[in-house]
Amino acid sequence: MGWVYVNEISNYDGKEVTLKGWLYNKRSSGKIWFLIFRDGTGFIQCVVSRSDTDEKTFQLYDELGQESSIIVHGIVHQDRRAPGGYEVIVKKIDVVQAVHDYPIALKEHGIDFLMDHRHLWLRSPKQVAILRIRHTVIKACRDFFDSHGFILADTPIFTPTACEGTTTLFETDYFGRKAYLTQSGQLYSEATAAALGKVYCFGPTFRAEKSKTRRHLTEFWMVEPEVAYYDLDDNMKLAEEFVSYVVQTVLKERKKELEVLERDISLLEKVEPPFPRITYSEAVEILKENGIDFEWGNDFGGADETVISNQFEKPVMIHRFPAKVKAFYMKRDPENEELALGVDVLAPEGYGEIIGGGQREENYEILRKRIKEFGLSEEVFKWYLDLRKFGSVPHSGFGMGVERAVAWICGLKHIRETIPFPRTIYRLEP
Amino acid sequence: MGWVYVNEISNYDGKEVTLKGWLYNKRSSGKIWFLIFRDGTGFIQCVVSRSDTDEKTFQLYDELGQESSIIVHGIVHQDRRAPGGYEVIVKKIDVVQAVHDYPIALKEHGIDFLMDHRHLWLRSPKQVAILRIRHTVIKACRDFFDSHGFILADTPIFTPTACEGTTTLFETDYFGRKAYLTQSGQLYSEATAAALGKVYCFGPTFRAEKSKTRRHLTEFWMVEPEVAYYDLDDNMKLAEEFVSYVVQTVLKERKKELEVLERDISLLEKVEPPFPRITYSEAVEILKENGIDFEWGNDFGGADETVISNQFEKPVMIHRFPAKVKAFYMKRDPENEELALGVDVLAPEGYGEIIGGGQREENYEILRKRIKEFGLSEEVFKWYLDLRKFGSVPHSGFGMGVERAVAWICGLKHIRETIPFPRTIYRLEP
Repeated sequence: MGWVYVNEISNYDGKEVTLKGWLYNKRSSGKIWFLIFRDGTGFIQCVVSRSDTDEKTFQLYDELGQESSIIVHGIVHQDRRAPGGYEVIVKKIDVVQAVHDYPIALKEHGIDFLMDHRHLWLRSPKQVAILRIRHTVIKACRDFFDSHGFILADTPIFTPTACEGTTTLFETDYFGRKAYLTQSGQLYSEATAAALGKVYCFGPTFRAEKSKTRRHLTEFWMVEPEVAYYDLDDNMKLAEEFVSYVVQTVLKERKKELEVLERDISLLEKVEPPFPRITYSEAVEILKENGIDFEWGNDFGGADETVISNQFEKPVMIHRFPAKVKAFYMKRDPENEELALGVDVLAPEGYGEIIGGGQREENYEILRKRIKEFGLSEEVFKWYLDLRKFGSVPHSGFGMGVERAVAWICGLKHIRETIPFPRTIYRLEP
Repeated sequence: MGWVYVNEISNYDGKEVTLKGWLYNKRSSGKIWFLIFRDGTGFIQCVVSRSDTDEKTFQLYDELGQESSIIVHGIVHQDRRAPGGYEVIVKKIDVVQAVHDYPIALKEHGIDFLMDHRHLWLRSPKQVAILRIRHTVIKACRDFFDSHGFILADTPIFTPTACEGTTTLFETDYFGRKAYLTQSGQLYSEATAAALGKVYCFGPTFRAEKSKTRRHLTEFWMVEPEVAYYDLDDNMKLAEEFVSYVVQTVLKERKKELEVLERDISLLEKVEPPFPRITYSEAVEILKENGIDFEWGNDFGGADETVISNQFEKPVMIHRFPAKVKAFYMKRDPENEELALGVDVLAPEGYGEIIGGGQREENYEILRKRIKEFGLSEEVFKWYLDLRKFGSVPHSGFGMGVERAVAWICGLKHIRETIPFPRTIYRLEP
C-alpha cells in the first residue's frame, strides 16, 4: 500500500501502509515504545517493538522529539484498546526532520506566548478541532444557501463610502483618492438581489474599533443573505432555519471535535425552529425585571445581551428596535414610526449577538429623507437610491458573523481562537 | 398556490401561481399582450388577454415600462412554442412600482455608461448568466477541495509584511502602525498545512498595480490549496484534476447560461487530465519558433502566454522557471540550481495564466539564505522560518485567480464583467 491518511485507516486493517506526518507524543516501556502520530487528519498510536522493526528504527526513540516530521511504514491493526480503535505496528520510520526543542510543549502556556506562536499553536489538538468546526460552519452556511436557490454574489472590499458611519473604517490610498475597507456587503447585495432574486455574499469585513472585548476582531468573516420580496417575518424565518441548519450540521459531522473541546452539546441540540421572538420593548422589560437600569431607546450592550439571552435555551430573536439606534436604510414599522423593522439574533449561553438584519426601506422619497436626516451625502448614495427608483421591491436580509457563531458552537470564551490568524487592536502578527 | 419562482415553474403545470419580480420586456398584438417576466431565477412569458384577466390589469400595458416591479397571478400552461416551454396565462397583476425611464434600454450601450450603472446592468441576461457561472465556479472549487479531504483555513487580509515585493501593496494605518492588504494567503497556508495536512484558503487578494490591461483587477478572489508532503509532480496532478473538475461542473450545470453567452464549448469539453506539461525552456523554444525575440531568463508577458497557450487545445502546465523570476520561497530543482520548481497553468484560447504555484523550500538554512539574497528581513519572516525549524516537510501548493478562470470559461474578452462590482485603477464606484 502507498501513502494513506489517518482518517482513512479503517479501510486498511491488516495491510501495510505508509503514513506521512509528525510525532505528537511518545512513551517507552522497555522493549516497546509507542508514538502518537498525527498527519492533520487525525491521531493514531504506532507501536515500535524490536520484533517487528529494524534496529535503526527502534533506536530512534531518543532522537525524535515532539513535532519531528516522520514517515511511518507499518501494518494496520485493529485494537479496541487503542484510541480510535486502530494502531500501526511499525516496520520502519523515515526521519524527515528530527526536532528537539519544539516551543509548545504538552503543558499549559500563557496566552501571549501561544498567540506569538500561533503558526505552531495551530497544530495543537484543540486548535485543530476548532479549525475543523470552523470549516464545517462555513461549508454549512454555503450549503444552506446554495441548496435554497441563493446565488453567491461577492460584494467589493474597497468601497468609496461608509455603510454605517466613518469612525470605525480602515482607510487606504487608492491611486490618489481614498478607499475604505467594507464593513458589510449589504448595500451591494441589495443591488444583486434585484438582479438574481436570492443572493448572499460571504467575505471578510473590517472594523477599526478600539475594542478590547473578547467578542471583537478587526477582521472577521460575515455571511449576508438578501432576498427580494422578503419582509421582516420572512427574514426571521430564514434566519432561524439557517442557524438551526448550521448547528445541526456541526453536531452531526463534528462530534469528535466537540468532544475534544469538551463542549456540553445539550443546548445546541435544542437549536431548531421556531426560535422565540420578542420585541425590543419586551427585551427592555426583561432587563428591568433583572434589576438592570436600562432606558428605552438605547442600544443593548454586551452585558445586556447576556442577561436577555440567558432567559432562553434557544437563540432569541429581538425585533422592532428604536429607529434611532439602527441604520438609515432600515424600514420603519408601519404601525409605529419610532420603530425600525430590524432583528438581532442572540445566541444562548451568554454569547450575544450573532445575527443582525432587517427589512430595508424601499421607498425612494423616504430613503432620500433618511439619508439627509442621517447627515449623509445624497450624491454618494445615488446608485443606492437608483435601486428605489427602478423596480423597487420590499426586501430583507441579515448578516451572521462567522467567528461569533464558531465561538458559540465551540463553547469558547474568547473569539481569538476561532480564526487561524486573529487580528485585534494589539495583534497583527504572526 | 402561493409564491413560486420561475425556475420551478415546471412543477406547477395547470396550477394557479403567484410570481414576484420585474417586467423585462413587453409586446402587444391588439387583443393580447405579452410580457417577459424575470425574477432572478429565470425568464418566462406571460400572456395578458381580455378573456382571462380583469380590465384593470389588461389596461396596464402602457403603464408598465422595463424593470417595473410586479406581482403576477396566473395559470401555468405548458406550451412548446414558448421560450422555456411554459407560459403563464395572467389573471391579475399587482403593480409594486411602475417604471418608465429605466436607463439601460434593450439596446447597445457604451462600456463606461454600463460600468457607471453596474448596479442596474447586473440585471441584464448576459450579466446574470456570468454571475451564475461565477457562483458555480466558486462552488465547484470548494466542493473539489472539500470532497478531497481539504480543510478551509482562512488566511489574514491584514499582514505586517509583503509576500511578493512591496511596490504593489495597498497600505492602511493599523492603530498607529502600517498594515498591508494580502496578495496571497500562501505563507500562512504553509502553517495551516502543517497543522491540518491538506488545506485551502479562499478570499479576496489585492494588488495596487497601475495596470490597465483587460486581465487585471485591483481586488480579486483567489483559491489556494497547500499540501504537506506534496512535491511538484503531486501539485501538478492536483492542479489538472482541480481545473478539469471546475470546467466540467460548469458545463454540466450551466448549459443554459453558456448558451446565453454564445460560448463555443468545444474546447472546454476537452479539459480533462492529463494536461500537457512543458518546461520553461521548452516554452521559450515555442516562442522562438513563432518568431518572438525572447531571451531565456525573462518572465513571460501576456502576449507570450497567448502564443504559448495557443499551441495547445487544453490548459498547458509550464514548470521549472528560472529561479530569478520566481519568489524567494520556491524550492530549487535538485538537478539544476538555476531553476525553481514552480508551475504556471495557462488557459487555452489566449486567456493566459490562471494558476501559479510550486514546491516550497523546506530547508531552514537555504530559506534563510534566500531571504537574505532577496533583501528581505529575517526578523519579519521569523515565524515563517519556524515552519522549517519545527517539523519541516516537503510541501507544495498553488493559487487560482477566480476572475481569470471565469473569464476563460465564459469566453469574455475583459475580466471586469466576471465580478459584481469590479475594482480597477480607474474605478472604485459604484
